[in-house]
Amino acid sequence: GFVKIDHHRKKRVGFAEIVFGEGKTSAQILAIVQSLRQRNESVLVTRISQEKAQFIREQYPEMQYHEAARILAWKNEETSVADNKGYIAVVCAGTSDLPVAEEAAVTAETLGCNVKRVYDVGVAGLHRLLDNIETIQGATATVVVAGMEGALPSVVGGLIGNPIFAVPTSVGYGANFNGLSALLTMLNSCASGISVVNIDNGFGAAYNAVLINQLAYKGAESN
Amino acid sequence: GFVKIDHHRKKRVGFAEIVFGEGKTSAQILAIVQSLRQRNESVLVTRISQEKAQFIREQYPEMQYHEAARILAWKNEETSVADNKGYIAVVCAGTSDLPVAEEAAVTAETLGCNVKRVYDVGVAGLHRLLDNIETIQGATATVVVAGMEGALPSVVGGLIGNPIFAVPTSVGYGANFNGLSALLTMLNSCASGISVVNIDNGFGAAYNAVLINQLAYKGAESN
Amino acid sequence: GFVKIDHHRKKRVGFAEIVFGEGKTSAQILAIVQSLRQRNESVLVTRISQEKAQFIREQYPEMQYHEAARILAWKNEETSVADNKGYIAVVCAGTSDLPVAEEAAVTAETLGCNVKRVYDVGVAGLHRLLDNIETIQGATATVVVAGMEGALPSVVGGLIGNPIFAVPTSVGYGANFNGLSALLTMLNSCASGISVVNIDNGFGAAYNAVLINQLAYKGAESN
Amino acid sequence: GFVKIDHHRKKRVGFAEIVFGEGKTSAQILAIVQSLRQRNESVLVTRISQEKAQFIREQYPEMQYHEAARILAWKNEETSVADNKGYIAVVCAGTSDLPVAEEAAVTAETLGCNVKRVYDVGVAGLHRLLDNIETIQGATATVVVAGMEGALPSVVGGLIGNPIFAVPTSVGYGANFNGLSALLTMLNSCASGISVVNIDNGFGAAYNAVLINQLAYKGAESN
Amino acid sequence: GFVKIDHHRKKRVGFAEIVFGEGKTSAQILAIVQSLRQRNESVLVTRISQEKAQFIREQYPEMQYHEAARILAWKNEETSVADNKGYIAVVCAGTSDLPVAEEAAVTAETLGCNVKRVYDVGVAGLHRLLDNIETIQGATATVVVAGMEGALPSVVGGLIGNPIFAVPTSVGYGANFNGLSALLTMLNSCASGISVVNIDNGFGAAYNAVLINQLAYKGAESN
Amino acid sequence: GFVKIDHHRKKRVGFAEIVFGEGKTSAQILAIVQSLRQRNESVLVTRISQEKAQFIREQYPEMQYHEAARILAWKNEETSVADNKGYIAVVCAGTSDLPVAEEAAVTAETLGCNVKRVYDVGVAGLHRLLDNIETIQGATATVVVAGMEGALPSVVGGLIGNPIFAVPTSVGYGANFNGLSALLTMLNSCASGISVVNIDNGFGAAYNAVLINQLAYKGAESN
Amino acid sequence: GFVKIDHHRKKRVGFAEIVFGEGKTSAQILAIVQSLRQRNESVLVTRISQEKAQFIREQYPEMQYHEAARILAWKNEETSVADNKGYIAVVCAGTSDLPVAEEAAVTAETLGCNVKRVYDVGVAGLHRLLDNIETIQGATATVVVAGMEGALPSVVGGLIGNPIFAVPTSVGYGANFNGLSALLTMLNSCASGISVVNIDNGFGAAYNAVLINQLAYKGAESN
Amino acid sequence: GFVKIDHHRKKRVGFAEIVFGEGKTSAQILAIVQSLRQRNESVLVTRISQEKAQFIREQYPEMQYHEAARILAWKNEETSVADNKGYIAVVCAGTSDLPVAEEAAVTAETLGCNVKRVYDVGVAGLHRLLDNIETIQGATATVVVAGMEGALPSVVGGLIGNPIFAVPTSVGYGANFNGLSALLTMLNSCASGISVVNIDNGFGAAYNAVLINQLAYKGAESN
Ligand SMILES: Nc1ncnc2c1ncn2[C@@H]1O[C@H](COP(=O)(O)O)[C@@H](O)[C@H]1O
Ligand SMILES: Nc1ncnc2c1ncn2[C@@H]1O[C@H](COP(=O)(O)O)[C@@H](O)[C@H]1O
Ligand SMILES: Nc1ncnc2c1ncn2[C@@H]1O[C@H](COP(=O)(O)O)[C@@H](O)[C@H]1O
Ligand SMILES: Nc1ncnc2c1ncn2[C@@H]1O[C@H](COP(=O)(O)O)[C@@H](O)[C@H]1O
Ligand SMILES: [Mg+2]
Ligand SMILES: [Mg+2]
Ligand SMILES: [Mg+2]
Ligand SMILES: [Mg+2]
Ligand SMILES: [Mg+2]
Ligand SMILES: [Mg+2]
Ligand SMILES: [Mg+2]
Ligand SMILES: [Mg+2]
Repeated sequence: GFVKIDHHRKKRVGFAEIVFGEGKTSAQILAIVQSLRQRNESVLVTRISQEKAQFIREQYPEMQYHEAARILAWKNEETSVADNKGYIAVVCAGTSDLPVAEEAAVTAETLGCNVKRVYDVGVAGLHRLLDNIETIQGATATVVVAGMEGALPSVVGGLIGNPIFAVPTSVGYGANFNGLSALLTMLNSCASGISVVNIDNGFGAAYNAVLINQLAYKGAESN
Repeated sequence: GFVKIDHHRKKRVGFAEIVFGEGKTSAQILAIVQSLRQRNESVLVTRISQEKAQFIREQYPEMQYHEAARILAWKNEETSVADNKGYIAVVCAGTSDLPVAEEAAVTAETLGCNVKRVYDVGVAGLHRLLDNIETIQGATATVVVAGMEGALPSVVGGLIGNPIFAVPTSVGYGANFNGLSALLTMLNSCASGISVVNIDNGFGAAYNAVLINQLAYKGAESN
Repeated sequence: GFVKIDHHRKKRVGFAEIVFGEGKTSAQILAIVQSLRQRNESVLVTRISQEKAQFIREQYPEMQYHEAARILAWKNEETSVADNKGYIAVVCAGTSDLPVAEEAAVTAETLGCNVKRVYDVGVAGLHRLLDNIETIQGATATVVVAGMEGALPSVVGGLIGNPIFAVPTSVGYGANFNGLSALLTMLNSCASGISVVNIDNGFGAAYNAVLINQLAYKGAESN
Repeated sequence: GFVKIDHHRKKRVGFAEIVFGEGKTSAQILAIVQSLRQRNESVLVTRISQEKAQFIREQYPEMQYHEAARILAWKNEETSVADNKGYIAVVCAGTSDLPVAEEAAVTAETLGCNVKRVYDVGVAGLHRLLDNIETIQGATATVVVAGMEGALPSVVGGLIGNPIFAVPTSVGYGANFNGLSALLTMLNSCASGISVVNIDNGFGAAYNAVLINQLAYKGAESN
Repeated sequence: GFVKIDHHRKKRVGFAEIVFGEGKTSAQILAIVQSLRQRNESVLVTRISQEKAQFIREQYPEMQYHEAARILAWKNEETSVADNKGYIAVVCAGTSDLPVAEEAAVTAETLGCNVKRVYDVGVAGLHRLLDNIETIQGATATVVVAGMEGALPSVVGGLIGNPIFAVPTSVGYGANFNGLSALLTMLNSCASGISVVNIDNGFGAAYNAVLINQLAYKGAESN
Repeated sequence: GFVKIDHHRKKRVGFAEIVFGEGKTSAQILAIVQSLRQRNESVLVTRISQEKAQFIREQYPEMQYHEAARILAWKNEETSVADNKGYIAVVCAGTSDLPVAEEAAVTAETLGCNVKRVYDVGVAGLHRLLDNIETIQGATATVVVAGMEGALPSVVGGLIGNPIFAVPTSVGYGANFNGLSALLTMLNSCASGISVVNIDNGFGAAYNAVLINQLAYKGAESN
Repeated sequence: GFVKIDHHRKKRVGFAEIVFGEGKTSAQILAIVQSLRQRNESVLVTRISQEKAQFIREQYPEMQYHEAARILAWKNEETSVADNKGYIAVVCAGTSDLPVAEEAAVTAETLGCNVKRVYDVGVAGLHRLLDNIETIQGATATVVVAGMEGALPSVVGGLIGNPIFAVPTSVGYGANFNGLSALLTMLNSCASGISVVNIDNGFGAAYNAVLINQLAYKGAESN
Repeated sequence: GFVKIDHHRKKRVGFAEIVFGEGKTSAQILAIVQSLRQRNESVLVTRISQEKAQFIREQYPEMQYHEAARILAWKNEETSVADNKGYIAVVCAGTSDLPVAEEAAVTAETLGCNVKRVYDVGVAGLHRLLDNIETIQGATATVVVAGMEGALPSVVGGLIGNPIFAVPTSVGYGANFNGLSALLTMLNSCASGISVVNIDNGFGAAYNAVLINQLAYKGAESN
């Protein structure tokens, strides 16, 4: 039967369902949260505004709102006792890419994975990246977030050996075309070990990185 | 110093350098191969035509040409004694996607990783995919190759739990725009655990999948 | 003469004219409605806001406003006595596609056709679709609404045999490009029996499906 | 089980599988044809060149090659005894659109449906279309094929009442962008009752039209 | 010298300079108007809001604001005594195209040319166009304004013999891409005698049509 | 009736039909030419290769092939006795634009209109244009042909007063995108009196210019 | 070490860092400004609104806000004693391009370079440009700013010999596509000596022009 | 008068005219070369094939053909006695970018400027770039050539202080879109001091760099 499907997913990341908050009303989100909490499931809502989060927290004050990441989360006890082994690196180019980087970092942390942040290390000032390269080299997997020309994953890809999940952001103007420029850059990267997610999709990159950290520390049978 | 960089890369996949054959002359490729062979390095040349491969094989008859994959390869002894643990799945939608799927499969095999091929399981005939789903679920990581509308990764993503590297192909016509349609489909996938490489880049997806199989079976210290 | 044209159209769907409300002022819509009501014609206004609908309903309180669908409608007695045979299925992938799905469903109902709604059955959780597939298989024609990567029509197309009218929605972000991604996916579908209407055009898909239900139950002479 | 799926499809159009010839070798096509013929299945191969067709016909001389349509076909006895009721109209704008129109017409005929061809009736000479409008009005469903600006479906859509499947062609130059212009025109049509298939996809439009002719003459239970 | 240039322009249309109001402040527009009025020049300001126009009219109450056209104009005596020979036709497809059609019509009238308006004659209801075709055939030149799929100029072009200036509008949604669809349609028209101006540029089309009416009634020496 | 349409067209330009040669076989073109010659009609075939033209000229040696323009033409006596009044200017930017400029010039001459050619006057060497500006100013209408950045019509438009038909060419490379760059430039021109035809459509621009020369010298009753 | 990098940059333009104000909060900008002022560094903040600038100026009233340019700046004594040799020309086509032109001019002035402004000299009125051409010819380097069709750099490039930095602006509508039209025009310019920066990036063009003025007057050892 | 224009240009780079060979016949190129040689002018023909160059060299055997650069050149005595001061750096990312890099290098050398080549230093192997950075820092101006994702100029821009002319190449596949990816990357670069020329336009970048080397060593009066 197909009931195995969801079970599989839950076992791996400890979450039955992750809620995409954008375009949902407070009432719709509350209904989903209620249904998850009744089953004592962990809850992760992405792209939720402060106002909507506040509305949910009136009923569930123990839930935490991460402002920069725009994430509302709560973990049950099972999820909380993470193994605490290994970490993923979240790297970003500039201050404006921060919300996407934080979406990635908080997602990973909520899914029970350690995170090291390496922010504001864009290629135009290479020494800042080189000063932090060992932190990135030591990660199990790396999320690289960049807007404008999106060159950072290529440079990081030439310096490290773990798998990179590249996230183009919509930061920029003019011929940036809302992130198209960074997206194409990353898809065409001549460095190996890089794959790409949608523009501004910090969540998606982090989800992949967490899967890999689990494979590395729990082995493939965790699949 | 920066000399550590290449060393790092070699340690992980056992290859000092992988050669992109497209747009290089037979003479240029021969020169690179000679330089690698002199140092007894393993050799992997992608996107190389039968004619050019034949030219190289006149000097190095022990090198093997994989016609469907358009790959020329040779492994030294070190690389050959792979651990033989785990496997990656290479899944493709239709017969026309086969060259890209084979580029992925042969790349992975040359890098010392086991591969299970699940071909011709496009979404328009769902039962074929469902008949093979356990093979895919058992893999450490999965490469999904699809042209036309490129919907296969989304469907696979809803059925399995290991990380998926999606490869859009340029197969199609009209509003396919040489693979743009499949590329956008995969970037917008609403399933989690999917990341994307360039159109027709079977090599890139396989490289990522192999990295992950190593992390799962050798642990993160293999990094 | 050309006077036959409009007569033809009216006979088939029982409506002399369907009003596209977007970009029309309340006053302009009222004028059109008045002219139709004076001739005792049924009225169907799509893409009309609650405010504008309220303005019209002050004069014609018997008209009904369908909020989710953003449709204002009234049927004369002739149209009301529909044959009640057969039904069309309206299928959608996610909650955010609901307004477009409802535009389709309410349009079909207003045109006198039965509708079965199969909502929130996106491909990332295939079992939800499979649980409802018999409802879809039993329809005369099917409207499939999907945003993001728009893969749903391809999957449905491989499972059923009636004609599918696919509606891409503008739901998504980043490389979705306001529905372009879903549109291209649907145009490139490798399943047979699928044709496509404009992004967010629930009305257009339903109109086609209703035509076909009439052909199936009244025969081609209804043409 | 899922075995019902293909059975369903076959029952409706009398064909187990339709082969897309483009990008397949003569040998690959021969293998598929052999497998179908051994089970006495009808065969329809689209987008196949004269040379490849000749190769197949050396073994199966009873198969017919339709040069303008680039289709190779053979019908078993079952398929041949079509009901012969109703017809679809295939309409095209100019001489250059003929290959696509013929792909549609021959597809429909091979699937056992009557076809009336109304060719070279582009909008720049409206009287030619008006002279033939009754033929189109009498059809169960209509396929309209047009390149360049692709305006023909909109004009036909204002004059007739049966469902229209619009096929943009890649005929044109400059700002035509290989059929993009005609595609957008058709998707944006302000006439009701029009849906669209991929650029140059005469097959897809005909398949839909045949489905509808069957619904109209055999009723929805033929589904 | 180059002083002849402006003189030339003025002689032909009776206006030294035409002001594009969009993106200019009330103060900037007032300054330009003042400078023209001091030299007793006729004034034509396009794309000016009611508010800004009101601001100018406080100082020059004799200037006329055309609300639908968003034009503010005043003609000196010289310009007023137009020859009154011939006329141009301004044709539009739907109600939403009206602002652009009015920009064309009022521009032409302000430049001293007679205008006949033929509005709401879109191709989806061909009889409305055919009922008015003689008015269009009698014009010296024709401006055709259409949004959505923009098919109207092609149809008109097949029915009349005078030069057509086609204006795509940004009216539509989804795959309309803000007028791109109508623009491409018009550029690819297979009817002869059609040329195209920018999306929503009613002014530009009218300017051309007026030039031609003058050539036809004053002869080429008016050049 | 609608028979008036073609008659109208013929009266104005003296040609019953103009044949677009591209994508037609020699045999198809011959058939059209034969049918026209039997009715003693003038013949104008555009976009026809030397080989195909030679094939036609074997039967009709009196027809003339214009190599640079790729036009095959023959005028009956009626068309030949043109009024010989006025002229149009055909202006082009560089040597590579010559085929399109010649298509325009020969079209106009074949339609019985005088032409003055002003070639190789691109904006990068402004003095060449200024040296010839009086020839252009003296024309009834002007065709301006330019590739690369397509800036020439804007500059000419600021210097002359007659109507300009701008033809973007596909000449260029890289970010030229096969003429898209020049097309956009011309559509956005801030000079008045410019309208645009399709990329490389020298024929279309010339047809318009000839219409206007007739209006100027025969008056609007020639319509 | 890599510390040399920033030192290099500062020496040349006298600024340690230039702040891109867009998308930064007042607080973030204040923090950066404070850190620079503490080290007595010159400060240049681009794309900063009046409100944010006012917030900073409450603490640093000696800083100057350039409204049209949207720049906030302050120079230390070192930077102020510029050599005062040579100048760059900032040329723009129309009034709407002024904000971008001013961003360029004020940037250059703040970096210690003389500027001559040549504004409102668009190609549609060529004499205005020709009247000012000697000013432009006398500059060390030229910034040319233009929206709409963006033809100005090509024309200027044919008339002068110093290096031109072309800035497309987002001014325009319809087929302008937010500056894409002007950008493509400038990239395809057939005049030599032109290079291009991002849409609306007046800062970037000025920065380049200032570098060159320094090279010309201080020699390459200033590098 | 305008005769000064060309004189100006010649004085600066020592060349009256530079010939773009692409799309010109051997005969056309020969005619231009002859006319230049008769006036003893230096000659520079870009984008000329070996065959065409050979044709010219039969008459002018002293002219030199640069195969990798596809340039044919000859310098008169005046041009030859260059000052020999300073140099420009030509940097490229990979072997496939070599033809464009050589077009730049040979153009600069032919215009009498010293060149230092720094090839195959793509960002995926950063140490190669860092090993050569002092050569680039020492140049008066730098040409950076890169295909694929085109990230090299951003990285170089963060490491050096002289003006960079970035050249995107059409090298790549898939989502590279013939150089569009690299072009957008370079236009969006967050490093200062970078401007961009058309895809594959090595000539244009070199021309600019040479202008600047002259300004630096001859001063602005060389203008
Ligand atoms: N088929 C392929 N597609 C994309 N990248 C490749 C491919 N084959 C090799 N590469 C990458 O290209 C780099 C070598 O490029 P090159 O120096 O041009 O041979 C290697 O480091 C690989 O990462
Ligand atoms: N929501 C809709 N989307 C697309 N077309 C529509 C919609 N509603 C109505 N229409 C069509 O628009 C036409 C009426 O347009 P109008 O004359 O502008 O009201 C009708 O004939 C319908 O075919
Ligand atoms: N070179 C050309 N470019 C665009 N349209 C053309 C050209 N030559 C002829 N035509 C048009 O194409 C129509 C004939 O098309 P066809 O029936 O395909 O020969 C004529 O009515 C002309 O208006
Ligand atoms: N208006 C502007 N447009 C483009 N780049 C700018 C602009 N202003 C500053 N910059 C660049 O942006 C960099 C600073 O970015 P940030 O660290 O985000 O403040 C500086 O090094 C400048 O090169
Ligand atoms: Mg910063
Ligand atoms: Mg198959
Ligand atoms: Mg859901
Ligand atoms: Mg025809
Ligand atoms: Mg209407
Ligand atoms: Mg020239
Ligand atoms: Mg002005
Ligand atoms: Mg290399």
